[in-house]
Amino acid sequence: MIEFGENFRSIWLKVGDPTVVQIIDQRRLPHELVITDLRTVDDGIAAIRDMLVRGAPLIGGTAAWSLYLAALEDPGAAELSAAAERVNAARPTAVNLAWAVDRVMQKVSATPEDERVTALRDEAQRICDEDVEISRSIGRHGLSLLENIARRKAGEPVNILTHCNAGALATINWGTATAPMYLAQEAGVPIHVWVDETRPRSQGSQLTAWELGRAGIPHTLIVDNAGGHLMQHGQVDICIVGTDRTTRSGDVANKIGTYLKALAARDNGVPFYVALPSTTIDWQITDGVADIPIEQRDPEEVSHIPGEHDGAVVTVNTVPAGTPISNYAFDVTPARLVTGLITEAGVCEASEAGLAGLFPDRASRG
Amino acid sequence: MIEFGENFRSIWLKVGDPTVVQIIDQRRLPHELVITDLRTVDDGIAAIRDMLVRGAPLIGGTAAWSLYLAALEDPGAAELSAAAERVNAARPTAVNLAWAVDRVMQKVSATPEDERVTALRDEAQRICDEDVEISRSIGRHGLSLLENIARRKAGEPVNILTHCNAGALATINWGTATAPMYLAQEAGVPIHVWVDETRPRSQGSQLTAWELGRAGIPHTLIVDNAGGHLMQHGQVDICIVGTDRTTRSGDVANKIGTYLKALAARDNGVPFYVALPSTTIDWQITDGVADIPIEQRDPEEVSHIPGEHDGAVVTVNTVPAGTPISNYAFDVTPARLVTGLITEAGVCEASEAGLAGLFPDRASRG
Repeated sequence: MIEFGENFRSIWLKVGDPTVVQIIDQRRLPHELVITDLRTVDDGIAAIRDMLVRGAPLIGGTAAWSLYLAALEDPGAAELSAAAERVNAARPTAVNLAWAVDRVMQKVSATPEDERVTALRDEAQRICDEDVEISRSIGRHGLSLLENIARRKAGEPVNILTHCNAGALATINWGTATAPMYLAQEAGVPIHVWVDETRPRSQGSQLTAWELGRAGIPHTLIVDNAGGHLMQHGQVDICIVGTDRTTRSGDVANKIGTYLKALAARDNGVPFYVALPSTTIDWQITDGVADIPIEQRDPEEVSHIPGEHDGAVVTVNTVPAGTPISNYAFDVTPARLVTGLITEAGVCEASEAGLAGLFPDRASRG
Repeated sequence: MIEFGENFRSIWLKVGDPTVVQIIDQRRLPHELVITDLRTVDDGIAAIRDMLVRGAPLIGGTAAWSLYLAALEDPGAAELSAAAERVNAARPTAVNLAWAVDRVMQKVSATPEDERVTALRDEAQRICDEDVEISRSIGRHGLSLLENIARRKAGEPVNILTHCNAGALATINWGTATAPMYLAQEAGVPIHVWVDETRPRSQGSQLTAWELGRAGIPHTLIVDNAGGHLMQHGQVDICIVGTDRTTRSGDVANKIGTYLKALAARDNGVPFYVALPSTTIDWQITDGVADIPIEQRDPEEVSHIPGEHDGAVVTVNTVPAGTPISNYAFDVTPARLVTGLITEAGVCEASEAGLAGLFPDRASRG
């Protein structure tokens, strides 16, 4: 039984057997909850490459634990360097992956061979614990926003709209956009979450709805097309989404479709917040629409949809044979449409001045 | 072989057997092209009720042909009145259905019993022919808009974005939003159409992509989330959508998600046009957002997705068990976001003045 909240982790050392790391095979959700054992560095690489785990923080955590498994096999420096290279190649564009590998390899350099297993175990645990603390801090800052709205609504639930899964499953625990929701539930602040399906990969219906359902947080699944109508009719009090990359000026790249919700929020006076760990701020880039390259992914993500049929999980083709398909993975929401950024250091305006106020050292380094 | 264009019809009298009406079973598209025979009024009622046919004009046409089939069975006035009542009840909210039934029943009253079969056959044909002429007129007016853009683009295709299926399959031929596309193809104006998937029923991928593919019109299927990104990057020259109901002030109720595309069009300076027969203008209503009731449909439309698997068409459940779902069918796009309305009488501003200019008699009757 997976319980979201204080005791949940998306990756953990197996109880009673510290030579095994365990994860949830997220490809099988929501129809099957499969816990997968990682026993070797190759198991970890496969989990990252084949997307059993996804979400930048969880990919970083899995990379760190994979190198611990490598040390169990052989703690030699040359062997660990070779393993690190292979881990890095599992998903080359994942920023947190390279960051976590670097950090673990610094620990390797600084530690005698016979102490490396313990050192790498501690470092992987520390990387995960730090991520949990970042998510909790984001949650605490976001909770203040929800509490303010709750006071106005006098007992009526705060209606939150979210897009994609910036959830506990994408991090080690709590998530980013979902952290304020989990903390609101702990604090007894009544909330209700509109969950965007999030085509094409449907992380909203596959992951966010599953997470919130398990946690007992009231929620309703909607198609991506519906949010504008709900906002027109006063049924959304606040939008909170995650982001994959934020520019120094506060533009945010997030799952495709985020921009459309931000436009609807602006048109209806609904506050639109983006939750992010400061590690996802790209201090080199100012103009997100012009300068963030948007990845195009496999057209089959659009045409082929997995689901449960007669007790089995099958994938159906939903389009006419030969239909040309384009599949952009992300879009950029300009800072002008973002009410505020919720970071581990506090909430700020989505602007260069706002971010520099919270992170003066990083901002001045550029 | 179905050929869209001049010779296509979505409903027709069977060649060689004028006692049989034929339709395409649109529920089976795009995976199977099944032509269904209607031999009795009950066949016609079932086709409407079970949504083998959909789209206001096609429902009206099917109702008219159903009464012709009723007259073949028994041309008595009492029998035809009883049949008319049952046809009307097949989809009680379809405005065109009641309109077509009324019109045919006036013909019944005015015609001796022994001439009714021929009279009703002629009337059904006339209703369909008139609808085709309306669609062609919409197409001609829309074509002018496309030609203007094409001149600017000097040979590059005009990129059109559309939502849902306001296509030939929803009318008798040509469609409303698609009519300018078909006429552009005839006229040699180069175009390319971005087809929104249109969750939850996916009329974009199931019907529009199929229609355009059959007609050989260049098109690309995208998820509903993608249009904003495309507009940000200059990849959309014009949006053209249909509408189910237009207020006297030019607000348009159309498939859920239309409003989000109109917001993105406004934000990026992309012209946003709505194509409609004047019969769908509701002269009684001014404020669409406040006064047009939005139907909520079966949650299974969101959770359960049909598609082809191993050569068979099956439906898969895509959501966690017990997930609450809300399924609003339409949203309202305020006139302020609509660049213009394309009607059979011409293109006008989306405003009371604009509509009154094209339809002075109707506007003054209120």
